[in-house]
Amino acid sequence: MGDVQLKQPLVVIKVGGKIVEEEATLQRLLDDFAAISGYKVLVHGGGRSATKMAAQLGIETQMVNGRRITDAAMLKVVTMVYGGLVNKNIVAGLQARGINALGLTGADLNVLLSDKRPVKDVDYGFVGDVKQANVEHLASLIHQGVVPVMAPLTHDGKGNLLNTNADTIAGETAKALARVFDVTLVYCFEKPGVLYDEHDDASVIPSINHELFRELVAKGIINSGMIPKLENAFGALDAGVSKVYITSSTAIDGQGGTLMIP
Amino acid sequence: MGDVQLKQPLVVIKVGGKIVEEEATLQRLLDDFAAISGYKVLVHGGGRSATKMAAQLGIETQMVNGRRITDAAMLKVVTMVYGGLVNKNIVAGLQARGINALGLTGADLNVLLSDKRPVKDVDYGFVGDVKQANVEHLASLIHQGVVPVMAPLTHDGKGNLLNTNADTIAGETAKALARVFDVTLVYCFEKPGVLYDEHDDASVIPSINHELFRELVAKGIINSGMIPKLENAFGALDAGVSKVYITSSTAIDGQGGTLMIP
Repeated sequence: MGDVQLKQPLVVIKVGGKIVEEEATLQRLLDDFAAISGYKVLVHGGGRSATKMAAQLGIETQMVNGRRITDAAMLKVVTMVYGGLVNKNIVAGLQARGINALGLTGADLNVLLSDKRPVKDVDYGFVGDVKQANVEHLASLIHQGVVPVMAPLTHDGKGNLLNTNADTIAGETAKALARVFDVTLVYCFEKPGVLYDEHDDASVIPSINHELFRELVAKGIINSGMIPKLENAFGALDAGVSKVYITSSTAIDGQGGTLMIP
Repeated sequence: MGDVQLKQPLVVIKVGGKIVEEEATLQRLLDDFAAISGYKVLVHGGGRSATKMAAQLGIETQMVNGRRITDAAMLKVVTMVYGGLVNKNIVAGLQARGINALGLTGADLNVLLSDKRPVKDVDYGFVGDVKQANVEHLASLIHQGVVPVMAPLTHDGKGNLLNTNADTIAGETAKALARVFDVTLVYCFEKPGVLYDEHDDASVIPSINHELFRELVAKGIINSGMIPKLENAFGALDAGVSKVYITSSTAIDGQGGTLMIP
């Protein structure tokens, strides 16, 4: 454990679709992100833009359990929107703010290698479950001041890109980088944090450990989509990430949100 | 001049749109590219796919002097197609062949900084003329075995992406890398090389220097679109690139094509 203190801090910030897809909120996010000091990584979504672009191309979006069914036509759309449109505009916006950004999918530098999700009840199509993270080049670039910007795409090592949830991209990248850095992972979403009362934004739960989590799930206070989100967060903590925040996209440093602790 | 011999060889290969846009020819290109030993960079186009995608989105493609007029809607299309669809599929295809590829636009790592082309007779819109190449990170990654794959997009440092001709991307990247490597630049296109008779593919001119170029232009043997292509090639030679080949996409090592010499 002695070498843990030698690790330098790094923050991995995951921002959801909406904030990166509207010009005004994107500019504010980039300002906020640029203002964060030290080593950092940005992971973005882009689902709303993908749905909109698909509609413009006459491709219907089908969601099951909150996940996009990704057939060949939809894979083309998300590759264009996540890997191209959203990612490269963020990179250009950060460069304008003096941040030496590098946009990446999981295929680039082989950062995130996935297995195509096996078909059980649902055939999600070209959707990837991460099986391996290779962050040696990434860590070295970060040490040289480069800021990775990661799109929610991975690859299977056989030439196929795969659509992968941005929360997963953030979690897997954070876990892998935790071998080199003292990592804080910040999940930003539309609420200011995990809430006692989902209708009251002032009811943010300041911190949650495993025990409180189980208690709140039992009481039904934490439910549906929040359960996998928090399970992911605990998974990151168990795998060496130092801190996980769940917070709003207007407080990307985590302040005021929910701090997850082991 | 003594240190020139210490530079290690690197090949920058530019492939045009068609070959990277059809599945069968792309797979063959990736096989050929993977087979090239030593340090290498791939630069790709994607114009046909952009035109097709634009049409599907109801956006009309307008070309002037062989160059795409890039308004805001078209910029979105080329960002998706060049930076996303074409680039990331090449990266995934190379990873499948054991090549640690990294897809980039000129905005990534600030590799190619451009000025938006000033409006004279024609308003090309969001089109960039490269003013600065920053290849320090790129050179270091190449030395570590990474293979950059570059899309024909640059940025203006103010947050805007700019559409930039792939020949220019290849030329500027090759020139900048020539400070570190012994660079061979290969321009692949639909003909087997520069031809004495444009209707006879067997009439490849094996090598051209400045003098022969002037002579062939005066005779009308080299004309129209080939003139700027060859001027670019001579520009690269004058700026430190060791060799430039103009050849077909099925001979990306340059063999059998036209060798440009100072």
